[in-house]
Amino acid sequence: MRDIDEHTITAAVLASLEACDDQRLRQILGALVSHLHDFVREVQLTEEEWLQGIRFLTATGQACTDTRQEFILLSDTLGVSMLTVALNQRRSPAATEATVLGPFHVDDAPRAEQGQDIAAGAPGRPLDVDIVVRSSDGSPLAGADVDVWQADEDGLYDVQAGTQRRARALMKTDAEGRLRFRAIVPTGYPVPTDGPVGRMLVASGRHPWRPAHIHFIIKAQDHETLTTHLFREGDPYLDSDVVFGVRKSLVTKMDAGLTYTFVLDRKE
Amino acid sequence: MRDIDEHTITAAVLASLEACDDQRLRQILGALVSHLHDFVREVQLTEEEWLQGIRFLTATGQACTDTRQEFILLSDTLGVSMLTVALNQRRSPAATEATVLGPFHVDDAPRAEQGQDIAAGAPGRPLDVDIVVRSSDGSPLAGADVDVWQADEDGLYDVQAGTQRRARALMKTDAEGRLRFRAIVPTGYPVPTDGPVGRMLVASGRHPWRPAHIHFIIKAQDHETLTTHLFREGDPYLDSDVVFGVRKSLVTKMDAGLTYTFVLDRKE
Repeated sequence: MRDIDEHTITAAVLASLEACDDQRLRQILGALVSHLHDFVREVQLTEEEWLQGIRFLTATGQACTDTRQEFILLSDTLGVSMLTVALNQRRSPAATEATVLGPFHVDDAPRAEQGQDIAAGAPGRPLDVDIVVRSSDGSPLAGADVDVWQADEDGLYDVQAGTQRRARALMKTDAEGRLRFRAIVPTGYPVPTDGPVGRMLVASGRHPWRPAHIHFIIKAQDHETLTTHLFREGDPYLDSDVVFGVRKSLVTKMDAGLTYTFVLDRKE
Repeated sequence: MRDIDEHTITAAVLASLEACDDQRLRQILGALVSHLHDFVREVQLTEEEWLQGIRFLTATGQACTDTRQEFILLSDTLGVSMLTVALNQRRSPAATEATVLGPFHVDDAPRAEQGQDIAAGAPGRPLDVDIVVRSSDGSPLAGADVDVWQADEDGLYDVQAGTQRRARALMKTDAEGRLRFRAIVPTGYPVPTDGPVGRMLVASGRHPWRPAHIHFIIKAQDHETLTTHLFREGDPYLDSDVVFGVRKSLVTKMDAGLTYTFVLDRKE
């Protein structure tokens, strides 16, 4: 393995993985190395550009906190997140489509009851939400866990605004699979531009906007978990979402009220 | 751009770069996105694996400090660093070969004089170093800057051992292009295994060892800067360096003494 050159190095790295017992890990690392090397060779990366890349990745990692995930934002803005979501959509035609998780989900959202105002002081125009969760055979899913989060009218999530948890909640559907609560009308917002990913967007001439949306994760017994958004009809950024997440089927009216039926596939 | 799928998303991301004024950035980002998407499609990455990847990259960024560069270590162990070095070797046949920078270079090494013991207390068997720096036309390069760093006999750099700066120095060649100093005989060592990259090496069945070496960066007026190592002849890991950095021409005897002539190309 002495004197490997720019052509033989890829085979040398793949050979170093031969003792890997975990076949899936070996497959993933091997493919990653092959594609990464192809990228470096294709653009004939300079050493200065390599160092800029190292600094960018380091800054991206160091921008991550308990409440900000800059690497998810990077994955989102490069289309890697939505590609992964698309590859893993094994849903029936009736089931609601998935989209990206995004960087602002937290695990410790407050619990809320039917009818509650989950805005909890977040500024914005009130929105009465009335949703139903069904199985793909049409039967209502009672007691489904519904995890909701959204930005306020200034385009900020609670974790960005530095407030207590607000405009997010963990709720459950009732016996008819229905859940009503009060939230706020979502507004479009730019993804954070004060970090390395924002600087990449600016440098590459891209706008940082996401169309207005509300996030949902819905879990029901014996069903596939659904991670998705609902998008606000009429938003000017529906056709240029910076994270490539819009699905036509997820665009809906959100003026004073929002009604929607989510359909989950039964687990195979 | 609504309803893009796993096949059309790559074109959608490339289209988002159309307003990028910096043609080189556009080329690099476009190629990165294309190869990264190909990787994700080839292995059919699951959402759980995607999340593991996000966590790995985040941990790698957060393991970086002023004196530890875990992303360089990742690049080194995946062969990306040595590939970049190989692509950028535009040297004459006479010139000394380059190899990787590695993660342990610092910018504030102490200055040392001709004849000084740069070990400065680092444990190890003394090594008398006697090098010459020449231009590729054979003329000696006086006043060349020589930046040297090495691990101690326990395989640790000062920045890992948590000591003051030692076993590293910034020196200058004399009027004959010669530089003599005392260092220590290098020993092979494992790259750090207490971080995310070390865990990747263990999980993939790879050993973490580098063959014994001393690092050099040599700068001389009107000449290309040389970043390289000298490797100790006889080391058992010369054929399986974890960062793929060994060049036959850089392997040399290092018992009580080390002599070597470095040859730099004149800038075009």
